[in-house]
Amino acid sequence: MLKATIDAEIFRESIDAIAALVTECRLHTAEDQIRTRSVDTANVAMVSLELQSTAFNSFSATAGELGLDIAKMKNIIGMMGKGDALTLTLLDEERKLELSFGGYRYSISLLDVNTIRKDPNPPGIDLPGKAVVPGDALNNAIKAAAVISDKIALGIDPDAMTFYMEAEGDTDHIKLALGEDELVALSPVQARSLFSIDYLKDMGRVMARADKVEVYLGIDHPVRFVFDIADGNGRVEYLLAPRIEAD
Amino acid sequence: MLKATIDAEIFRESIDAIAALVTECRLHTAEDQIRTRSVDTANVAMVSLELQSTAFNSFSATAGELGLDIAKMKNIIGMMGKGDALTLTLLDEERKLELSFGGYRYSISLLDVNTIRKDPNPPGIDLPGKAVVPGDALNNAIKAAAVISDKIALGIDPDAMTFYMEAEGDTDHIKLALGEDELVALSPVQARSLFSIDYLKDMGRVMARADKVEVYLGIDHPVRFVFDIADGNGRVEYLLAPRIEAD
Amino acid sequence: MLKATIDAEIFRESIDAIAALVTECRLHTAEDQIRTRSVDTANVAMVSLELQSTAFNSFSATAGELGLDIAKMKNIIGMMGKGDALTLTLLDEERKLELSFGGYRYSISLLDVNTIRKDPNPPGIDLPGKAVVPGDALNNAIKAAAVISDKIALGIDPDAMTFYMEAEGDTDHIKLALGEDELVALSPVQARSLFSIDYLKDMGRVMARADKVEVYLGIDHPVRFVFDIADGNGRVEYLLAPRIEAD
Repeated sequence: MLKATIDAEIFRESIDAIAALVTECRLHTAEDQIRTRSVDTANVAMVSLELQSTAFNSFSATAGELGLDIAKMKNIIGMMGKGDALTLTLLDEERKLELSFGGYRYSISLLDVNTIRKDPNPPGIDLPGKAVVPGDALNNAIKAAAVISDKIALGIDPDAMTFYMEAEGDTDHIKLALGEDELVALSPVQARSLFSIDYLKDMGRVMARADKVEVYLGIDHPVRFVFDIADGNGRVEYLLAPRIEAD
Repeated sequence: MLKATIDAEIFRESIDAIAALVTECRLHTAEDQIRTRSVDTANVAMVSLELQSTAFNSFSATAGELGLDIAKMKNIIGMMGKGDALTLTLLDEERKLELSFGGYRYSISLLDVNTIRKDPNPPGIDLPGKAVVPGDALNNAIKAAAVISDKIALGIDPDAMTFYMEAEGDTDHIKLALGEDELVALSPVQARSLFSIDYLKDMGRVMARADKVEVYLGIDHPVRFVFDIADGNGRVEYLLAPRIEAD
Repeated sequence: MLKATIDAEIFRESIDAIAALVTECRLHTAEDQIRTRSVDTANVAMVSLELQSTAFNSFSATAGELGLDIAKMKNIIGMMGKGDALTLTLLDEERKLELSFGGYRYSISLLDVNTIRKDPNPPGIDLPGKAVVPGDALNNAIKAAAVISDKIALGIDPDAMTFYMEAEGDTDHIKLALGEDELVALSPVQARSLFSIDYLKDMGRVMARADKVEVYLGIDHPVRFVFDIADGNGRVEYLLAPRIEAD
């Protein structure tokens, strides 16, 4: 069962965070929250999202599982006005979801959850390096690197006390180092891994809206990004596998 | 004969209203107005436009007929500044039209009116249902329906006292019902017809600018939209044939 | 040697002026300025640019020559923020240029100057007609002409005391005449030449930002445009060969 009302903008933010990686997902409802955890088709990246009941204007739910077509959700979001309140209601023994906003009633068939990949288990990895970075600085650095390469290195230099990103083109090289003044916080543990720009670009667009993003790093290890949505009533986590550094 | 000056914005509004359906038209001049009535190439939709002499800063005309290339007119409009006054002058025994604005003199050969379809006779149809709807609400509903279908039903529910639009996708369904609070007026006569979204989208973009649009409906009958332009000194009418509702 | 800091906006303006014609250039450094002079691959147009040391926040240079990839420069400029200060530093015995701005360090290999065409000699031509025109009026006229033709005539009518531009389409004709009120200055010498719109469009976009552009014209002769950049601390000159007027 689900009957909940939420600000259209918060719903948009949540769907965008998921849409950066997947086009469909299993949404789990519980008495006090909704959440999803999905990996992309290439098994390279994972997104986890939790939205507490406090993120909603009103929220009433029991434990359940919904198959969401994320691409379709993005279309519907495009119809909503800025201040709209969106009411989500499960219909027809949980086979249809109704979205009501500003006079519109939109009902959509849910996907059969058995056709969607099971929730992945989060890998147990130790990422000792940590930097807390303004979301827009992170996104700008990713966009800058994308101009010259399809790979970007993220790292922490404990001696210089900086979080840095670095990219290498055929004839050019770019490096952005953020020191203590530009960072919210830094755990100065040596770290450096190489990542695919394609994934980071989509994540970066979402993270650009976050005041601060926790970035967890190791050496040739995945990166984990964690940030709040919905004024702290929700949380998003991205995990991205590293690429092998070529000589 | 025609020699008239008009605000560029009003001219743009008028050309846009015609351009939603046709790429050329016969423009009739008279002592006190200009007007056109044209059907689209597929014979599915009709546009009528009248612009009274009061819509112009100055107006002097005799009865005549001009072949206008609407696509070319749209190009010229793109050159005009916002506050420009546009002067239209018939030259060369009515074979060339000169448009002057902001230092520019643009002269264009008129089309031979004999190559353009004759004015259609407006069909004598009775459309008993009527709703008066804000133009932007109408356009938004059309855009929302377009996301999931290529057909849209427009109707009046006299019991619920609503004007509604409804569209059906493969797995989803959208309905917008506007009640008395959201409507300017309603004649509560049972009505419902199905229309092609393609035509409505182009009309919707034009109607979005109108404070209110009169919508006339029947059962499986055409729809007629009527709205003012040029601060009430002009009037546009669209007529659109219905589509057959599939089972 | 080169070590100089400049406002990102002035650098963008300068690179844009060059990029309108060429994708690479020889940049000459001197104690008190940088400058370039390049012709396009078709030998139809030439750009000259000078930027005095006073255009920079700080400037230190010796005589030298750099091979610049202008397309790459445009990419880097896209990463810069509006108020950024950009520091240019020649590295590695003048084979690499480092651009630093807002925490970023971008190093780019310079092109081998021997692979870039030598500086052209400016042709010795006499262009007796001169009009000084607001840059945006010039650009708007070029854009208007581009809608109907790929050629534009620029001329001076000493009798009417106007600078004019004129274009001819298949069925239409446009003329913009600017009189003394709309011009900054006019040397009323009979002049008229025909030019390719393609070149003028790219130049027009750059000239649009100039308060005034000096336009030098003859009869079936090239046109020369001269305007300031960097608040008068720099100067750009475009020279464009005429096209033959067809009957």
